[in-house]
Amino acid sequence: MATGLDGSASEADLDARHAEKMRKKKAARDKIMATKTIEKGLLIVHTGKGKGKSTAGFGMVFRSLGHGHKVGVVQFVKGRLDTGERKALERFSDLVTVKRMGEGFTWETQDRQRDIAAAREAWDVAKEMIRSREHRLVLCDELNIVLRYDYLPIEEVVDFLRDEKPEGVHVVITGRNAKDELIEIADLVTDMTQVKHPFRSGVKPQEGIEF
Amino acid sequence: MATGLDGSASEADLDARHAEKMRKKKAARDKIMATKTIEKGLLIVHTGKGKGKSTAGFGMVFRSLGHGHKVGVVQFVKGRLDTGERKALERFSDLVTVKRMGEGFTWETQDRQRDIAAAREAWDVAKEMIRSREHRLVLCDELNIVLRYDYLPIEEVVDFLRDEKPEGVHVVITGRNAKDELIEIADLVTDMTQVKHPFRSGVKPQEGIEF
Repeated sequence: MATGLDGSASEADLDARHAEKMRKKKAARDKIMATKTIEKGLLIVHTGKGKGKSTAGFGMVFRSLGHGHKVGVVQFVKGRLDTGERKALERFSDLVTVKRMGEGFTWETQDRQRDIAAAREAWDVAKEMIRSREHRLVLCDELNIVLRYDYLPIEEVVDFLRDEKPEGVHVVITGRNAKDELIEIADLVTDMTQVKHPFRSGVKPQEGIEF
Repeated sequence: MATGLDGSASEADLDARHAEKMRKKKAARDKIMATKTIEKGLLIVHTGKGKGKSTAGFGMVFRSLGHGHKVGVVQFVKGRLDTGERKALERFSDLVTVKRMGEGFTWETQDRQRDIAAAREAWDVAKEMIRSREHRLVLCDELNIVLRYDYLPIEEVVDFLRDEKPEGVHVVITGRNAKDELIEIADLVTDMTQVKHPFRSGVKPQEGIEF
């Protein structure tokens, strides 16, 4: 192999090696992807302490809406800090159905019975959206929070998703502390892991970032 | 405390304890949030092997658009698999500027010099978007990939973001293998950690999920 005066490979060598490496990578990737033939509605969970769980959930909602799919959104416990998403979804009112059930985070209401009733109502709406097959994707935003507080029995939610979710419907569930039972039956699980957070340096929640 | 015949706490007790716990939680949270007073444009990085990096990036774009902010999007290496986002963004053509620079992933082009030229062109567009102060948020989608292959010098990118990014502009950078130098200067970093992925069970990339 040709090398420069300093013993390093020339640009042309780097280019040639790169092309060969990428050719192999593409061949390997194409071979793997050829084995991926199943199309089915997925159960997707975004959990973890980092940011991006609901944000990626809404990202999937917009991606699906971009394809012209009908989408359902049920917000289980979000309060006032969701104005950006709500306003953006208004431009897709022909395709999206949004139900906001929660009255805020649980430390805002401080009323367990009201929270339980709101969770039950939201879950009934979500089940109906999923069962109806009218929506290609249903986002159950912050459902994990409700499950963590046992406002809904995890067994009931798992049984429904495993046995009654139609094959063609994607369901996305967000919120930290996802229960093991849910992770067990999910197809795709991502843990948003916090590496650095600006609140630590005194930065406040800002429009377009947190809400 | 009153307990049932089986020794368990009554529902009323649970409710009272819950209210007290949540009252304390709200007080603690309010106190913490009162110390968060700084408003500034953030440098946000989504990295890691899991799904949701670009998706959460686009989620932030839509959230910002919902607020009526102008937003810039530069896609550094995405190929054909981004149709959903692109079509959804068309409904916000009054607010968003999108530049697609990459011709595909690097294993598709297999041409290092073309990739380097495309990366340079995309970075020039991104810099101009950030510097102009016309956009409240600029998404540099998959910039980490370009940096990982050294198609752009990390020092140049870090110097620009640290010294030339206007105070009021949020910049979101996505892609796996974020360089340490970038994480070092970022305000908010999330690692999307893969827990479960459906490709493993033969499921193919699907419309609305992967693209």
